[in-house]
Amino acid sequence: MKMLINVAETVVADALRGMAAAHPELTVDVENRVIVRRDAPVAGKVALVSGGGSGHEPLHGGFVGPGMLAAACPGEVFTSPVPDQMLRAAAAVDSGAGVLFVVKNYTGDVLNFDMAAELAEEEGIQVAKVLVDDDVAVRDSTFTAGRRGTGATLFVHKIAGAAADEGRPLEQVREIGHRVVERSGSFGVALSACSTPAKGSPTFDLPPGELELGVGIHGEPGRERRPMMTSREIADYAVDSVLGDLRPRGPVLLLVNGMGATPLLELYGFHAEVQRVLAERGVVTARVLVGNYVTSLDMAGASVTLCEADEEMLRLWDAPVRTPALRWGV
Amino acid sequence: MKMLINVAETVVADALRGMAAAHPELTVDVENRVIVRRDAPVAGKVALVSGGGSGHEPLHGGFVGPGMLAAACPGEVFTSPVPDQMLRAAAAVDSGAGVLFVVKNYTGDVLNFDMAAELAEEEGIQVAKVLVDDDVAVRDSTFTAGRRGTGATLFVHKIAGAAADEGRPLEQVREIGHRVVERSGSFGVALSACSTPAKGSPTFDLPPGELELGVGIHGEPGRERRPMMTSREIADYAVDSVLGDLRPRGPVLLLVNGMGATPLLELYGFHAEVQRVLAERGVVTARVLVGNYVTSLDMAGASVTLCEADEEMLRLWDAPVRTPALRWGV
Repeated sequence: MKMLINVAETVVADALRGMAAAHPELTVDVENRVIVRRDAPVAGKVALVSGGGSGHEPLHGGFVGPGMLAAACPGEVFTSPVPDQMLRAAAAVDSGAGVLFVVKNYTGDVLNFDMAAELAEEEGIQVAKVLVDDDVAVRDSTFTAGRRGTGATLFVHKIAGAAADEGRPLEQVREIGHRVVERSGSFGVALSACSTPAKGSPTFDLPPGELELGVGIHGEPGRERRPMMTSREIADYAVDSVLGDLRPRGPVLLLVNGMGATPLLELYGFHAEVQRVLAERGVVTARVLVGNYVTSLDMAGASVTLCEADEEMLRLWDAPVRTPALRWGV
Repeated sequence: MKMLINVAETVVADALRGMAAAHPELTVDVENRVIVRRDAPVAGKVALVSGGGSGHEPLHGGFVGPGMLAAACPGEVFTSPVPDQMLRAAAAVDSGAGVLFVVKNYTGDVLNFDMAAELAEEEGIQVAKVLVDDDVAVRDSTFTAGRRGTGATLFVHKIAGAAADEGRPLEQVREIGHRVVERSGSFGVALSACSTPAKGSPTFDLPPGELELGVGIHGEPGRERRPMMTSREIADYAVDSVLGDLRPRGPVLLLVNGMGATPLLELYGFHAEVQRVLAERGVVTARVLVGNYVTSLDMAGASVTLCEADEEMLRLWDAPVRTPALRWGV
């Protein structure tokens, strides 16, 4: 598999140098792998810190900025960052109001963020945590105990980030972040495998003419493989999988997310099919986002994330945000 | 090649339905294939209309909105829109101040926009035109006489769009759009071919282990093929190709553009290498944009566009813009 890289060993550091040069509004510590909004710490405000393996860009570094994350810690590709990165991030952004760790539910991330939380508290930083486990496809896999964390991470970043921006105390910011997770569900499909720089070839084997239903964002196995399906059939399967778990009684936030290599032309067409199924099931979308936000390197495919949003969550969703990947109202 | 579609025949219409549902701030005429900003026509303002074959999303539909295009006309995949679409778009957005057609230099697009301009003028709409031909890789190909139009199209949309937003007369808006083209150069590389829905397989044959230097955005042949190169070597080749044609004496706008299937992680790393070469050549970047803006379906690869920007162009670049794909200052 050809890649636009120098060598696998420097892929993350190279990308961080490129981010630093593209986004002067961020402070990028390439050596220690921490991305911080330049004006941190912000007096009196709770600070959100997230992170995870690289390869899911723009998640998480692309969501650092006013209204979302105060800092992000990128690990090696598909590998959890280490506690030292998280501790550095927390220390850089804590204003005294405390830090919220937003953690996708993968074994390594959970362990490392827990360890970082202990270390931070030893240093006098108040820490709370939201665990994101929105992927309805499978429970308990080689990567995680419980469900995997995927698209809802973006919703938590945005909504809890806006709550922090309003100056709410740590416990309230944690509570609304947790509420977002409880009301969210995601389902992903892969049309092709992804290739990590270290391996240099596809991380799993997906035969021509088949797709993986319920795939994870690292290419983890899903529910089943089937002969290739149409956009309409995939939308039916994905939306019904989410609705089988989440039963929204009100309007939802919808994320139709590209895995990385699926053209935007196809993604918009898929979104039309997702809207059709939702309408058939009586679900109304209050807000919609279509694009590549939580990717899996060069995987072709898409995921659907729904979040049942109350008035407060919608208001926080609409609040101003200014990050490399999400920006409105400012 | 697996695609997230229903059938090839409805790919563009499906995508337009998905765009309409995602972007209530746009009016999307799915049947006639015209995307218009909802508040058009804007009294007293020149209106920019662009378009071209589909498959390059977010170009052009993703650039419709305040501060950029008033309307876009998507053709079939890699096929020029027809004059009737352009005429409809012009009629929908003209406030009496005239319409600027922004046309990428491909034979079909040039002919059809010329015909549309004649028809529009018969209906009393004043029309001017900017032809974008920034690709320094080749002159005269199967697709075009002269150079191809690629990444600089985004610069023209943004800068001429901001000039129109300021209320400048048509001739001035045309002049500044033309100035952007004269001062721009682009160079693209492909690591993989792209597949159109109609063909269902790669549009050209790129052997494993080779890349295409100077590729066009439809997969047209470039200058040469070579054994796979590193990000560093590709950046050297691409930037030196642009600088061989364009000799900027001042700061430049830089677009590091993904072709569609290249992960953002790789694109940021490539950007770091592009910055390194530019620094070695004494070129300073005044503004930078890194992302997927002018794509070629599922092609892996990237392009570099430079534009020597004077003070006025920088001011217009920084002006507020609110479109699906580009948004700042509002």
